Amino acid sequence: MVRSFQIEAPNEQIKPLIIDKIDNLTKPKGSLGTLEEIALQVALIQQTLEPELRKPQNILFAADHGILEEGVSPTPREVTWQQVLHYTRGGAGVNVFCEQHGFGLKVVDAGVDYDFQGHPGVIDMKVRRGTRNFLYEAAMTREELERCMERGAEIVCQCIDEGSNVLSFGEMGAGNTSAASLWMHLFTGIPLEKCVGAGSGLNKVGVQHKLEVLQQALNNYKGNGSVLDIMAYFGGYELVMAVGAMLQAAEKHLIILVDGFLMTACMLAASKLYPHVTDYAIYGHCGDESGHRMMLDALGAKPLLSLGMRLGEGTGAIVAYPILQSALCMLNGMESFKKTEVTKYF
Amino acid sequence: MVRSFQIEAPNEQIKPLIIDKIDNLTKPKGSLGTLEEIALQVALIQQTLEPELRKPQNILFAADHGILEEGVSPTPREVTWQQVLHYTRGGAGVNVFCEQHGFGLKVVDAGVDYDFQGHPGVIDMKVRRGTRNFLYEAAMTREELERCMERGAEIVCQCIDEGSNVLSFGEMGAGNTSAASLWMHLFTGIPLEKCVGAGSGLNKVGVQHKLEVLQQALNNYKGNGSVLDIMAYFGGYELVMAVGAMLQAAEKHLIILVDGFLMTACMLAASKLYPHVTDYAIYGHCGDESGHRMMLDALGAKPLLSLGMRLGEGTGAIVAYPILQSALCMLNGMESFKKTEVTKYF
Repeated sequence: MVRSFQIEAPNEQIKPLIIDKIDNLTKPKGSLGTLEEIALQVALIQQTLEPELRKPQNILFAADHGILEEGVSPTPREVTWQQVLHYTRGGAGVNVFCEQHGFGLKVVDAGVDYDFQGHPGVIDMKVRRGTRNFLYEAAMTREELERCMERGAEIVCQCIDEGSNVLSFGEMGAGNTSAASLWMHLFTGIPLEKCVGAGSGLNKVGVQHKLEVLQQALNNYKGNGSVLDIMAYFGGYELVMAVGAMLQAAEKHLIILVDGFLMTACMLAASKLYPHVTDYAIYGHCGDESGHRMMLDALGAKPLLSLGMRLGEGTGAIVAYPILQSALCMLNGMESFKKTEVTKYF
Repeated sequence: MVRSFQIEAPNEQIKPLIIDKIDNLTKPKGSLGTLEEIALQVALIQQTLEPELRKPQNILFAADHGILEEGVSPTPREVTWQQVLHYTRGGAGVNVFCEQHGFGLKVVDAGVDYDFQGHPGVIDMKVRRGTRNFLYEAAMTREELERCMERGAEIVCQCIDEGSNVLSFGEMGAGNTSAASLWMHLFTGIPLEKCVGAGSGLNKVGVQHKLEVLQQALNNYKGNGSVLDIMAYFGGYELVMAVGAMLQAAEKHLIILVDGFLMTACMLAASKLYPHVTDYAIYGHCGDESGHRMMLDALGAKPLLSLGMRLGEGTGAIVAYPILQSALCMLNGMESFKKTEVTKYF
């Protein structure tokens, strides 16, 4: 059995009080735009007029993908495990941005094709050394899917025990945009060719080949079309674990910082299971990957940044974090017209 | 005589070395998007492979505008001086974001219609208690323009003496979007109606009235059409001071963080005098004011944020600052493929 989550919309009773507070800060009404929207969202989630962010952490799920055998990515398979070790040593993109913004970093081996031999910097949740090739068979079994959802939830509970109330999620996995493109197509109905992009750097011919492989995989798919079946058939261990993590985070009323194309696909899948999970989501950025904007639109999401990033690892969410902090600085730090001698203007 | 500045493009000899460094960081080439462009720009300005940001400060120029008499803004005139005092006490938008990102704040009275009586928190550079009403006459004399340019340059030199190599600029001045809209129109040729917006919160009727007033002011203008003449005729003391400040900052190879509609208009004016001033500019955000996007396009500018902000004060530039820091964290903190055991991928 896949575990169930209790995910409800935040109670809106406090909403008028939050809006009144925001509208009385010493600025023209609405003049801080998205910062005001984010402040409202976070205050609603935390059910307080003085929300705060505690111990942010980035959870980076890594895994390999059977579909990589079909030449759908220019990234060699060994880059997955090499990068995982790189994250543990520091010096990768995710490390420098985590350091910049005081994020903890948890590197999770969800299913990397490598033996990390109990490396202390890698959290061992390995399901298998890479998924199966979904051109010919389901990427993972139903039991593996259930295990991934459980493990994702577990790691979030650990972060909560450590005092976190805001988490970002990231991924590493050569070939994983192929999985995410199929989720996007099947969960939104957007034509497949609009869901497929260059990943880590395919050229035009490469993208065309990737599209053909994915179309063939779709043709071969004989599953029941349920959300869970689609997740298991095309998914990656790191992606399903991220879905479980997001659902657990929403159940516990955490703020979920969503990274790029991959993590948006996970939020999309999560929302197909529990629609209110999106109430807890803040979208860090709109990446460069073709289709990301459309997927964000399908979720009704307004990303904070649009800087042409496509590194993954959680970097787009972490780089956006200070915007979230600014929203709370506004809400908690700005004076009210009621307390100053400034004439209230528009 | 208006003082002259020595503003040259940064020497490009070091450029291939910077690009080589960026392209060898452990990420797919180009995958950090705008962060890579910003890192290149800052490294070029500072002529080093290891640029750094020192003692950021926000200089906030405030002044009143004669044109306010014509009902072009919903903001009452007294809000200018009230807000200036508010900045000195803390609790305004600019204060909380300065505190968040460790910015110093200099509040400059460029021409506010109020006697601050030597208030220690306000830098007295007052030219006059507000400009004249440009519907009927030049907002300022040529001598006042020259004084503003000088004062703006002076305050930047003071910041340099204090150790700053990155400055943002902001403004407060009820009615000042009217001045900026006319600068935009006259410096870009974009039709006036596309340059005029809601300012701090005009409704549709109000915007139409503002447009008519500004069109009439244009009809009445009998000047020689030179950049300096346009600046003086329609300008604000705070705006011309910001132009002088930006030019001084560029001459000294500082990073210039440009805020919203008003400060973009100042950068535009500055660029009409010294085209290479824009080489030193980083645009914090695209605001909500109608025409801001078009003005940014006219400058070839790519703003870092687009969050619907329209508060001014420098807030959009300051809120964007961590993105600039992220670019340098990337450049200075990420490992090179040459030093790690990660296979170089795309």
